[in-house]
Amino acid sequence: MTIPPIDENARQQARQRQGRLTKPAGSLGRLEQLSIDLAGMTGQLSPPLGHRVVFTLAADHGVATEGVSAYPREVTAQMVLNFLAGGAAINVLARLFGARVVVADLGVDSDLPSHPQLRSLRVRRGTASITQGPAMSVEEALEAIDHGRQLVLDEIEHGLDVALTGDMGIGNTTASAALICALTQLDPKDVVGRGTGVDDAGLERKRDAVRKALLVNAERIEVGPVEALAAVGGLEIAGLAGVIIEAATQRRPVLIDGFISAAAALTAARMAPAATGYMIASHRSQELGHAAALRELGLKPLFDLDLRLGEGTGAVLALPLLDAAVRTLNDMATFDEAGVSDRETDAAHNRPHN
Amino acid sequence: MTIPPIDENARQQARQRQGRLTKPAGSLGRLEQLSIDLAGMTGQLSPPLGHRVVFTLAADHGVATEGVSAYPREVTAQMVLNFLAGGAAINVLARLFGARVVVADLGVDSDLPSHPQLRSLRVRRGTASITQGPAMSVEEALEAIDHGRQLVLDEIEHGLDVALTGDMGIGNTTASAALICALTQLDPKDVVGRGTGVDDAGLERKRDAVRKALLVNAERIEVGPVEALAAVGGLEIAGLAGVIIEAATQRRPVLIDGFISAAAALTAARMAPAATGYMIASHRSQELGHAAALRELGLKPLFDLDLRLGEGTGAVLALPLLDAAVRTLNDMATFDEAGVSDRETDAAHNRPHN
Repeated sequence: MTIPPIDENARQQARQRQGRLTKPAGSLGRLEQLSIDLAGMTGQLSPPLGHRVVFTLAADHGVATEGVSAYPREVTAQMVLNFLAGGAAINVLARLFGARVVVADLGVDSDLPSHPQLRSLRVRRGTASITQGPAMSVEEALEAIDHGRQLVLDEIEHGLDVALTGDMGIGNTTASAALICALTQLDPKDVVGRGTGVDDAGLERKRDAVRKALLVNAERIEVGPVEALAAVGGLEIAGLAGVIIEAATQRRPVLIDGFISAAAALTAARMAPAATGYMIASHRSQELGHAAALRELGLKPLFDLDLRLGEGTGAVLALPLLDAAVRTLNDMATFDEAGVSDRETDAAHNRPHN
Repeated sequence: MTIPPIDENARQQARQRQGRLTKPAGSLGRLEQLSIDLAGMTGQLSPPLGHRVVFTLAADHGVATEGVSAYPREVTAQMVLNFLAGGAAINVLARLFGARVVVADLGVDSDLPSHPQLRSLRVRRGTASITQGPAMSVEEALEAIDHGRQLVLDEIEHGLDVALTGDMGIGNTTASAALICALTQLDPKDVVGRGTGVDDAGLERKRDAVRKALLVNAERIEVGPVEALAAVGGLEIAGLAGVIIEAATQRRPVLIDGFISAAAALTAARMAPAATGYMIASHRSQELGHAAALRELGLKPLFDLDLRLGEGTGAVLALPLLDAAVRTLNDMATFDEAGVSDRETDAAHNRPHN
């Protein structure tokens, strides 16, 4: 995969324009940086943002039957139907902020009806339990990654300006925690959290499951990121890694959602380090290991609203900030245009104002 | 002033509905709390949010000539003209998020042309320097407060669902810091910050100015919040206190912008403690004392984007979160509607899933 380099010239132009706008330099804080980052990714100071697509990928996890989740495994399929009916949080938020939701089944372990809005890309019916051996084969992981890449390519044909990652899969905070530990030197006690809300005993079971998964898959994990993904990851996580890599390849900014998306982003970054240049971390979730995963990626989340829902909800909530960053950079008057004094001008004219 | 109590019944209804929506309980984090708070303020689970008005109030400050700002004093008037021309950050963001901007001159010390979009409510041409004595008389402060209240009443006639505070006034971070110190037991070293960006020497001058202001006005400050406002505050700050009090009186949620707005909110809260129930802190700014002022108000900001611009920009950026909170509460499917299993149901049926 060839990911194009960031456009340093566009970044420089955006930075210079920020300095001429009618506001104290730097006073729009992270919006200024965001406008510069978006210019670098797209090569444009005013990149289009209208075609925004949330890729909400679903799959089941063998480990889900081992008491690691507060919810029964069939909720994965039930929530896919909820997405298709438009009743989930991601649907409501996507409608509000003008995003399309692409729902894809990468490996749900229930029969799902065919539906015009459902992309059926099932690699297998759920993963095997990571506590017993590999979640899937390396070939299956690569197939799921390819499906994710193809989803992006298909959307490019309809217009795709910003890609957003989302997930659904009962048990997937366990797989994501294992994968993040596998790809970093982080300890499970610093990464495994309560997911959708397990109690203390459930949390202990999750930690044990992750430790066991890392032990039983130790040799596979050492081979490389795809092998680690196959060993302890999940099918939706693999698909999301593909979404991220292809979005970067196409020079599209990609808004990373929460903990599961961070695991996918870390995998994508290990496979293709240049992909990180196209990532924007939307939020920091409540999930224990999310902040650590973002630090590993070198990403600083835009906000922290104590979310822990997934589906792409945090990513969609960041869309207004992208709009705000691009519109302020492009639509604000400059000091010259508005006849407003800036500091430098006054210093040059030797006025006694400071 | 009579501020209606928060509707605890509506809060309870909103809280109960949050628990039935197809998501783990609490997983939408602060959006859930926001939807409950908005229900309590308005008495409605689905309050209208379409008519959103930013009250951007401008005034000059006598202390601005004492080297406390990085910008010359005439920038206040220049920026008012920029607001009227639609070229400032607040205009761009208000257009993006569907808000109206009401620009009012509460006490600019420059001649301003009459303009259909400018409310001329000038109490006096800027304040006197707070380092020499009171900024204004108590009567002038009360007049500015009344102007702010009347601005809200005028907008109610055109439809007003959410009020947002904004400010413009070179030197007003100095006045706001002095006022926050006067209304609390906070020390100037913990409250005075760099404002639009003064250097170290400027910061020292600001601290000295605030200390001097608190000393020379010590007796006035002790009398009460309006007297403190008159002594060390500003005309736009007084107007914003009026905006906040009247919005609360009318049961309209009021989005508090940054540091200057926090000083106004603190004044409003001291005058009418029940007003705090209608306040939503949009963001925490870079300004040193902002977090402390919000703590005094018992408000937790929704986000921190390192903003330090004022004008109402932070408040406007919070509007999408209000929309998101209300729409998820009202438009998401419940577990029953969607046929999704929730934990309690499964426990009752004794399924072996957890």
